[in-house]
Amino acid sequence: MPVAASSEVDPAWLPDEALRALGSRRVRVSGEGDLVDTVRAEVAYACGLFGGTPMPDDDGAADLLLRLTEGGDGGPEGFTLERAPGRTTVTAAAPAGLLYGYFEIVRLGEAAFTPAATRTHRPALALRMLNHWDNVAVHPVMGQVERGYSGGSLFWQDGRARGDLDRVRAYGRLLAAAGVNALSVNNVNVHETEARLLTDRVAEVAAIADELRRYGIRTHLSVSFAAPVVLGGLATADPLDEGVRTWWREAAAHVYAHIPDFGGFVVKADSEGQPGPFAYGRSHADGANLLADALAPHGGTVHWRAFVYDHRQDWRDRTTDRARAAYDHFAPLDGQFRDNAILQIKHGPLDFQVREPVSPVIGALPRTRVAVELQVTQEYTGQQRHTCALAPMWSGVLGFRPEGEHAPTVGELTASGGLVAVSNAGDDPFWTGHPLAQFNLYAFGRLAWDPAADPDRLLAEWAELTFTPQVTADPYRLRSGLRAVLADSWSTYEKYTAPLGVGFMVQPGHHYGPSVDGYEYSPWGTYHFADRDGIGVDRSAATGTGYAAQYAKPWSELYETPATCPDELLLFFHHVPYDYVLHSGTTVIQHIYDTHFEGVEEAEAAREIWAGLADLMPPARHARAAERYEEQVRSAREWRDQINSYFLRKSGVPDARGRRIH
Amino acid sequence: MPVAASSEVDPAWLPDEALRALGSRRVRVSGEGDLVDTVRAEVAYACGLFGGTPMPDDDGAADLLLRLTEGGDGGPEGFTLERAPGRTTVTAAAPAGLLYGYFEIVRLGEAAFTPAATRTHRPALALRMLNHWDNVAVHPVMGQVERGYSGGSLFWQDGRARGDLDRVRAYGRLLAAAGVNALSVNNVNVHETEARLLTDRVAEVAAIADELRRYGIRTHLSVSFAAPVVLGGLATADPLDEGVRTWWREAAAHVYAHIPDFGGFVVKADSEGQPGPFAYGRSHADGANLLADALAPHGGTVHWRAFVYDHRQDWRDRTTDRARAAYDHFAPLDGQFRDNAILQIKHGPLDFQVREPVSPVIGALPRTRVAVELQVTQEYTGQQRHTCALAPMWSGVLGFRPEGEHAPTVGELTASGGLVAVSNAGDDPFWTGHPLAQFNLYAFGRLAWDPAADPDRLLAEWAELTFTPQVTADPYRLRSGLRAVLADSWSTYEKYTAPLGVGFMVQPGHHYGPSVDGYEYSPWGTYHFADRDGIGVDRSAATGTGYAAQYAKPWSELYETPATCPDELLLFFHHVPYDYVLHSGTTVIQHIYDTHFEGVEEAEAAREIWAGLADLMPPARHARAAERYEEQVRSAREWRDQINSYFLRKSGVPDARGRRIH
Repeated sequence: MPVAASSEVDPAWLPDEALRALGSRRVRVSGEGDLVDTVRAEVAYACGLFGGTPMPDDDGAADLLLRLTEGGDGGPEGFTLERAPGRTTVTAAAPAGLLYGYFEIVRLGEAAFTPAATRTHRPALALRMLNHWDNVAVHPVMGQVERGYSGGSLFWQDGRARGDLDRVRAYGRLLAAAGVNALSVNNVNVHETEARLLTDRVAEVAAIADELRRYGIRTHLSVSFAAPVVLGGLATADPLDEGVRTWWREAAAHVYAHIPDFGGFVVKADSEGQPGPFAYGRSHADGANLLADALAPHGGTVHWRAFVYDHRQDWRDRTTDRARAAYDHFAPLDGQFRDNAILQIKHGPLDFQVREPVSPVIGALPRTRVAVELQVTQEYTGQQRHTCALAPMWSGVLGFRPEGEHAPTVGELTASGGLVAVSNAGDDPFWTGHPLAQFNLYAFGRLAWDPAADPDRLLAEWAELTFTPQVTADPYRLRSGLRAVLADSWSTYEKYTAPLGVGFMVQPGHHYGPSVDGYEYSPWGTYHFADRDGIGVDRSAATGTGYAAQYAKPWSELYETPATCPDELLLFFHHVPYDYVLHSGTTVIQHIYDTHFEGVEEAEAAREIWAGLADLMPPARHARAAERYEEQVRSAREWRDQINSYFLRKSGVPDARGRRIH
Repeated sequence: MPVAASSEVDPAWLPDEALRALGSRRVRVSGEGDLVDTVRAEVAYACGLFGGTPMPDDDGAADLLLRLTEGGDGGPEGFTLERAPGRTTVTAAAPAGLLYGYFEIVRLGEAAFTPAATRTHRPALALRMLNHWDNVAVHPVMGQVERGYSGGSLFWQDGRARGDLDRVRAYGRLLAAAGVNALSVNNVNVHETEARLLTDRVAEVAAIADELRRYGIRTHLSVSFAAPVVLGGLATADPLDEGVRTWWREAAAHVYAHIPDFGGFVVKADSEGQPGPFAYGRSHADGANLLADALAPHGGTVHWRAFVYDHRQDWRDRTTDRARAAYDHFAPLDGQFRDNAILQIKHGPLDFQVREPVSPVIGALPRTRVAVELQVTQEYTGQQRHTCALAPMWSGVLGFRPEGEHAPTVGELTASGGLVAVSNAGDDPFWTGHPLAQFNLYAFGRLAWDPAADPDRLLAEWAELTFTPQVTADPYRLRSGLRAVLADSWSTYEKYTAPLGVGFMVQPGHHYGPSVDGYEYSPWGTYHFADRDGIGVDRSAATGTGYAAQYAKPWSELYETPATCPDELLLFFHHVPYDYVLHSGTTVIQHIYDTHFEGVEEAEAAREIWAGLADLMPPARHARAAERYEEQVRSAREWRDQINSYFLRKSGVPDARGRRIH
């Protein structure tokens, strides 16, 4: 079986060259099991490329030994790495651990064969999952991949599962190398065709699962809560109805008959038009437990999304606050969910904006398994046309301590629930549209494995893997160039888009490019309330919507008043006059002007730095990103000019530095 | 042949009952020709319904005589109506005149058989044309009928001409009764499939033409200027290239071989992405004459649209003015167009807004045949969900005198060029989506016949025809009700939408519903420049874009200064502070508030009046309009609240009457 993707597809963080260190040595793999066979095949492939030798199981003379053993403290996915002089050993208690150990050796390269202290690695989070918002039948508005910016689906083509799944396998390999172990194959907005993946079309899902399984990834399905009605012909989907419960039990059994290690269901219910338990006067715990009970006999899990809010809000009504919705709906349900139900919570209270506070829901359900959902696909962060490395944002979320300084981090709170992300991958030759967006996919997996990992270190790690041949050629220039264009790119993007946590200001519908009032008079609940005097949303308990009080201390106190609220979240929590002075010392209006000029300057500088790296990488990869930088700079200027013009026209306050505003 | 549409289709202004007066009498039709046969069939149908008698040609004992004779002064489409005691006679020199005379008898009903002075009727405008923006292949964004709000196309279905063309014939009958004599069957944005109607798919057009011909309507095609390249495989579409000229001559001959009375071409060139002569450094006269020359041997005409402007404008650039574009492009070309080339000019300088000044281009080409283009389909005027009777607007345009008080009206200037409109009809059972939008279609035809016709009289005429059975039952309540909901509906719509001629403020793309800044930072050239101090576009010669100077006196002087500019166009021509006092005595900002409250009140009142008419018409017709009124009121409130909130937030000026603004 071929291990790597075809030559037409970018190798991302697994170029053959990254296998040189181990592939040029004597390597022994010891143990039984499908994933052990995957490691064997990897080793054979690497040695085939670089002249090394896969050693027979009974030969002691190996430079690298990958060994399955009883016991050990790595758990089902961990491994112990021993770097003795002349012999590096990976031991694991389970095959998955051996696979992750193998990819650790790949990451280390030559360093894997230098002596170091023995260390046991194990994932901090049990579930490291990607959600694919892929449609089987191309949606007339949303296309094949909803919020996808990387071509078509990796899984589906022409209305069904792809016949050739080699690329799915290659994708599984990349994901395993980043630490991902779970994946859902269809959009959480489950349309008519996709609903049937649960029933008469499950064989197509099974074929995909067969490929992903080779790399330790369990396959999940997004399902429609209305499936008993839509597919089963029942009169109701009431979670307490016995016929409905039977229907789901049989549906789950049917799936497991085809996919014995099926992961479970992902559900978007009572949200943005999707059906859910509210229609029957039942709670979301009732809804989640219905599916959990159906999955339990088979070891499956239901991921129940907490993204529930009123998307038919009246913009005139300032008492309703969408940010409050998930907490209001779910906090009262703590303790009511089954053990195999996971509440999947978006990292912020709104919807993947460039800057949001961490959702207070994450810390509000101590007796519930919670997963945090990130968006690797850049819906609101430049749609893979802008460089925007999100690891620093995610790292901040995972390190946040919802209950205060000495309480657990978000990373710790999600240990059993996991980290989930909407994938940015598609059938684009570079996987992610923008080649530099590969880093987001990689970093997601690595942070799910170790939420405490330093984003800068992950950037260096990714860069060395991805650019292995070039790093070898001119390490300093390439590393520093990549660092320069990526490390602060999230901050750059934030500077030229919606300021100070206020969010949105995007074009309605497709969400690309600026439209300051685009969502201001809409039913979506995402407003900035700018008038000639000031801007921002008062979410304080004292005078606003009370959202700030959903946090535990110290956050509730910190966010409650402008005086203590962090600058970057000021307009998320407060409505302030344009001349309000930030902690940084500038006024809100001048901050808007300054950051928008700076953001464009930074984007322009990044484009120049990128241009200077042309000789250090394959021309196609450089050209693709260079083309994206042109668009990023154009779009950033549009953001700058529209935002600055809008606020100059509204506030009447001139730029203190006299720059041109239209 | 069946004359009327099927029972599933609303009869519009030709219910069978409208034929009672003539259908219950002895009627003789005298003459030869296809259209005379059409009149005969009409008479036979009417008499079949109401017990009258079609008399043989040689029997003198008729109550109504429709007679083709040599000579007379009605011209090719006119007729003379003689209402003597006991005998009404229509005489016409040509069959088309007899057909129009027949429909005049229908309109008059019983009154046709009461004595009156003899009168000769003839159309003031030679061409009375509808453009259908219908796509053969459903467009992924624009759908089947671009800017159509009445279902699918009457002509095209499933990618080709409909097999059953009975409804096309019924449509032709309705149009003939309104006076229309020309029609183009496909969108002016000519996509790939539609381009081929000119060549290998012309037989489908011929089938449609066969039906329309029965009612005196000549069929036209929209063609792509790039056809010689796209369809012919030539290397160029240069209008001065001999190969290109030959290609078009042959293409025209091919069309005429299938459709001997083919009307000609409609062309949108160098506009919004459509190809045109600019690509070859040629003028639009060169482009139009190329096609005119190809059509001339066959008696065809080219309609060359003047809708040419830069749709990739930079909103930051205040020197470029889209309103200037048509004049700047076309005025210098006067005298260069062939006799069978017609310059088709939108009635206003922008794009069918609820209020625009009359385009200065119409009076700027005295040596060119000019047609004025109206939009019967309500793209910017409520999309057939809002009641908006446009006859008063059109009447104002047609009565405008571009060169001053004693110079010709627009109606007179277009005598040889004609009046053209984008149709609002589709395969909807009510033809036009909103049953009351039928009046727009009817009124267009009648105004094209007689631009001086009084819109109020046309409304009464349409109402009596359409509601004949009900008028008979309770004439006063129905007539006054219809008048109340229709006569001022344009003014109502204007009140709650974009104020004082400023235009746009619609949602981008689909153009339905409010978005004050929707086009403010776009490339489309349609801005309002509102800031905290004022609003409007300075198009004066002294300090603005100079557009006002494109008019002849007195208009150029009148529009030049706010002091003389009519209130309703103030913001089209001037940027003024919010406290600027209108001729009406209120400030601009208070006018905005007042009209927006009033507009909603008027829409609400119309909804109530309509509800009170339920017993006076077929339930389906009433219900359809009632449903539209619900949406109109909802949407009108949204317009009111968004516009008022936007300007309150921006200006800070409270409503003088203290009403609630959000």
